[in-house]
Amino acid sequence: MSTILSGKEVVKSLKEKIKEKLNKLNSVPKLGIYLKTDDDPARVYSNSIVKKAKKVGIDAQIIEVDPNITHEDFEKLYKDTEGSFDGVIFQRPFPKNVDINLINNIIDPKKDIDSVSSYNLGKIIQSNNIIAPATAVAVIDILKYYDIPLKGANVAIIGRSVSVGRPLVMLLLQEHVTPTVCHTKTKDIPSITKNADIVVVSAGRPKLLTKEYFTTESIVIDVGINVLEGKIVGDVDFDDVVDSVKAITPVPGGVGTVTTYRLLLNLLEVMDA
Amino acid sequence: MSTILSGKEVVKSLKEKIKEKLNKLNSVPKLGIYLKTDDDPARVYSNSIVKKAKKVGIDAQIIEVDPNITHEDFEKLYKDTEGSFDGVIFQRPFPKNVDINLINNIIDPKKDIDSVSSYNLGKIIQSNNIIAPATAVAVIDILKYYDIPLKGANVAIIGRSVSVGRPLVMLLLQEHVTPTVCHTKTKDIPSITKNADIVVVSAGRPKLLTKEYFTTESIVIDVGINVLEGKIVGDVDFDDVVDSVKAITPVPGGVGTVTTYRLLLNLLEVMDA
Repeated sequence: MSTILSGKEVVKSLKEKIKEKLNKLNSVPKLGIYLKTDDDPARVYSNSIVKKAKKVGIDAQIIEVDPNITHEDFEKLYKDTEGSFDGVIFQRPFPKNVDINLINNIIDPKKDIDSVSSYNLGKIIQSNNIIAPATAVAVIDILKYYDIPLKGANVAIIGRSVSVGRPLVMLLLQEHVTPTVCHTKTKDIPSITKNADIVVVSAGRPKLLTKEYFTTESIVIDVGINVLEGKIVGDVDFDDVVDSVKAITPVPGGVGTVTTYRLLLNLLEVMDA
Repeated sequence: MSTILSGKEVVKSLKEKIKEKLNKLNSVPKLGIYLKTDDDPARVYSNSIVKKAKKVGIDAQIIEVDPNITHEDFEKLYKDTEGSFDGVIFQRPFPKNVDINLINNIIDPKKDIDSVSSYNLGKIIQSNNIIAPATAVAVIDILKYYDIPLKGANVAIIGRSVSVGRPLVMLLLQEHVTPTVCHTKTKDIPSITKNADIVVVSAGRPKLLTKEYFTTESIVIDVGINVLEGKIVGDVDFDDVVDSVKAITPVPGGVGTVTTYRLLLNLLEVMDA
């Protein structure tokens, strides 16, 4: 039986850090979540952020965004409302007419707590970032909490998204990891994952990775959150893999759980900067 | 005997592109090179840019920078002079009192043709860049010129600098490569380079890589420029390696040669944007 790398344990330590930072503030931090009104999973996630934020003492609010809003109107909506918040998130998926490549012209990098702006992403390349996309940092949070050696480790990342895989390469280089990024065009992924000490899976496809991808020494971090037959499952086939690897994060209760608190901590980090 | 991937051939094709872009302009583009006065290699390189620029029809000028200039005075010098230029380079090494982490507050991303600003680096992560650090793009230029297959290729990058290794990972992901980044903390680099189709070496140490790192199928791109016993040599021990790999770039006459013209092309790209 593998070690289960529970996100709940990591959350406890992040809550402590959040509490410390909140104690230094004289006001209640305000978080704005811009949410397209017609996306149910995004609403479930946003509601859960609001609830968790309230519990730790952060005031998070949802700003309802019409799915058909024009780019210009979204920009105006943002400019009219950003003053009320210390940090903001543009919940994915964005409204279809909002040009994601022009998000930089809208969002204030100082309030961009999930690091979607070019400016904040570039600072990660420069190792000069105070924050990074919350999901990518949650992976690092879990690895560090469980004292998994990073310096010199070979890490295979499955998935090259702008919100996870790509910034994670840079964060792992800051930790002196040797990272390899695999994706749909990669030849023979198992030969790479089997040679890695740690495998981070962010492929966006349910139960894609089975035990053939791993060895008994593999440490598996599953970033995936998918709904399959009414159940939330990861990108790793947990039941198939759990007895044949060294350690694995569960889904739910793994990276996703940590991500929300990392996001709240990111808010306090930018307020502190 | 390996194929020698000469930079000179690539330069010819870049010069064609430069000529095409220049023909569409009504003015002579102006490039400003901010150069610390006491660094001889940087001056040699800057003079060579000026000379090559003039030959293709670009007016490049060196702005002399006192090695002891304060950060504030450098910022003022830049603000007072940037209006004269369509693009600028801050030649490395920077003056010791100039805070590289605040360069973003100085340079205009629209004129930042070697992509040193956070904003321009972040756009590379987002695959929304029109330019990237010239040396990193020069590597891609060489691979593409010689029709070396990139999609699905395993590429080992030796070196994780902000100007080469890190942006190169992102550029290679745009080409559907599977990249691995090696560095001083990497365990068993030869096991990684021997499994790669292409090895890009940017370690900054003369003749570091010998034939033990490669196979007869290796394609080797040497980014290094070092002076050893009065001679310019790469990071790869060319004489040791040349008969035992599939293809290799020479030093000099390889990546460095291409980089200058890519920089000039970057200037025209930002003017076109």
